[in-house]
Amino acid sequence: MSASYKFQGWLGLDKDSVKGKMEWKEYEPKTWTEDDVDIKITHCGICGSDLHTLRSGWGPTLYPCCVGHEIVGTAVKVGKNVKHFKVGDRVGVGAQSSSCLDCEECAAGMEHYCSKGNVGTYNGKYPDGSKSYGGYADYCRAPAHFAVKIPDGISSAEAAPMMCGGVTVWSPLVKNGAGPGKRIGIVGVGGLGHFGLLWAKALGCDEVVAISRTYSKKEDAMKMGATKFIATEEKGWNKTNSRSLDLIISTVSSPKMPIAQYFQLLRTNGQFIQVGAPEDAIPSFNAFALIMKGVKFGGSAIGSPADIAEMLAFAAKHKVHPFIQERPLKDANQAVIDMDNGNARYRYVLVNEKHAAEEKA
Amino acid sequence: MSASYKFQGWLGLDKDSVKGKMEWKEYEPKTWTEDDVDIKITHCGICGSDLHTLRSGWGPTLYPCCVGHEIVGTAVKVGKNVKHFKVGDRVGVGAQSSSCLDCEECAAGMEHYCSKGNVGTYNGKYPDGSKSYGGYADYCRAPAHFAVKIPDGISSAEAAPMMCGGVTVWSPLVKNGAGPGKRIGIVGVGGLGHFGLLWAKALGCDEVVAISRTYSKKEDAMKMGATKFIATEEKGWNKTNSRSLDLIISTVSSPKMPIAQYFQLLRTNGQFIQVGAPEDAIPSFNAFALIMKGVKFGGSAIGSPADIAEMLAFAAKHKVHPFIQERPLKDANQAVIDMDNGNARYRYVLVNEKHAAEEKA
Repeated sequence: MSASYKFQGWLGLDKDSVKGKMEWKEYEPKTWTEDDVDIKITHCGICGSDLHTLRSGWGPTLYPCCVGHEIVGTAVKVGKNVKHFKVGDRVGVGAQSSSCLDCEECAAGMEHYCSKGNVGTYNGKYPDGSKSYGGYADYCRAPAHFAVKIPDGISSAEAAPMMCGGVTVWSPLVKNGAGPGKRIGIVGVGGLGHFGLLWAKALGCDEVVAISRTYSKKEDAMKMGATKFIATEEKGWNKTNSRSLDLIISTVSSPKMPIAQYFQLLRTNGQFIQVGAPEDAIPSFNAFALIMKGVKFGGSAIGSPADIAEMLAFAAKHKVHPFIQERPLKDANQAVIDMDNGNARYRYVLVNEKHAAEEKA
Repeated sequence: MSASYKFQGWLGLDKDSVKGKMEWKEYEPKTWTEDDVDIKITHCGICGSDLHTLRSGWGPTLYPCCVGHEIVGTAVKVGKNVKHFKVGDRVGVGAQSSSCLDCEECAAGMEHYCSKGNVGTYNGKYPDGSKSYGGYADYCRAPAHFAVKIPDGISSAEAAPMMCGGVTVWSPLVKNGAGPGKRIGIVGVGGLGHFGLLWAKALGCDEVVAISRTYSKKEDAMKMGATKFIATEEKGWNKTNSRSLDLIISTVSSPKMPIAQYFQLLRTNGQFIQVGAPEDAIPSFNAFALIMKGVKFGGSAIGSPADIAEMLAFAAKHKVHPFIQERPLKDANQAVIDMDNGNARYRYVLVNEKHAAEEKA
């Protein structure tokens, strides 16, 4: 089977690719090793990072670039050294696909914080010099350490956006004690934020508060599990709701975010964790805001393979269903345009219809 | 005995009082209740807050004001409702002397984060409208809930600066896991920072790193327990020492502090806790600095009466000796000038020589 497929995908060739100008082309995957897996992709979520990268928003992109790091499909070739899944299994790959596996962080199961630097599933370079290519494609080759087996209880379409969007919010919620007795705020009701509401609800938190600029997404947010909705366009929102939350996860990345007011929502010893990645510096604030209530302002990036596995098991057990819209892979350019226009409700998932049909057969 | 003493102290009458112009005068203490204690003061540390307040640096001060909130002396009158010490006991009062004792925070033993607002030991107003007056004085009257009995193993002169300076650093160290296996950084080698080095060493931390602008205090820092010294005037200090610390306590309050570089010193999941209270906003930084290593930037204010008691017991057991310089209470004006000039090595303690002699007799 190894010679029966080519690696083809939607390639961004320059900054304009984000405007619906990706081109379907063949590319050279990483050099095969017996630690790798080839995945026949059925589904790939569209993440905000894809757009940042297509337009070189976080720095110059290594064009040609095939984005997409919420990849799910079938393992069609599995290296001899790989023990945690086999050919034919459904597996997923998230935003990271390599790390040194040797540093203190990797040894402690925090590969996503690898001190030698993690390698992104696209727009990265593996230690051997090969480039990494993502999931807007037919097939994907990646180090199997970063591929996670998908549990039976979750559909591939629903698992896909969990691989990056899901775990990015799951990880800081779980690591900071979200659960019964806790009141959680989620800033931003988008792809990431909607996962925040779903997880916080399923984790049994006492209060799940959606925080958005306007009331436009209130109805959806309540369906996702919010027990309360705060619109920051409403005057005095920060005073009305002061000292009401134990933990806030911020999924927005605007450098204009009203951070000092968000801090007002925290209870004593509360925490505000930023997962949205701003392209600019955040607004300056007075440290008194942290000191006088003993609060903390933290950051969190994606999650480790173990975090992803834990999240998927939880999602299967608690029947968590993300709000997704399936889009044919062939329409990836239009889907990227729609995503950029803020139309996703709440995550687009590209479907390789031929592969998906073959999987079901 | 109740009529045998008057309340007299060094009063700041305006902003110029910080320039050595406090005046020795009588004042009206809070209205007595059976929950209060009158303390015959033997010692009072000089805290940076005293200077900020004398010059209205944190907002307009309620002159006349008697500063000083590192108070130690003998309980000479104890309200009937007070059970945790008796007349004749040595007691201390820190920066806080009242709170609602009823809110969630107070009920949880976090009186210092009282959601109704805590009342400072000076420049505050008690619920009955009385003003609070501090420890640059002969006597002090305060709600006994905020007076802590001093253990036998600590001298009054050494206990005094622990009441505010000591606990301000003790609390975030202990609450954030300082101890064996941990590498701690202390930014600033002053009154607060010197306590940070002493506590971190006595808590058995693996590394205790003093971080200062120049090398001038290196020798002293090593005596206090530092295992390493970083001078930020040295080029490349942040790169040489990157990812080396689990927890940093920042005692400096300059709005020019190189906060992004301090974050570089943190290991993955590290924490940076600000205890110095800047008069201005801290420098803006990019949230990527927090996200990419999962680090947290927190704040911490003083400590509760229980924190103070825990710290004093630890200091007695581990024979922790602060670096203090005793100054006669009569020379308080000159001591304030010297403190403002940065001459304290590392904490001035005002001594009421008559009271101290009587205590020993």
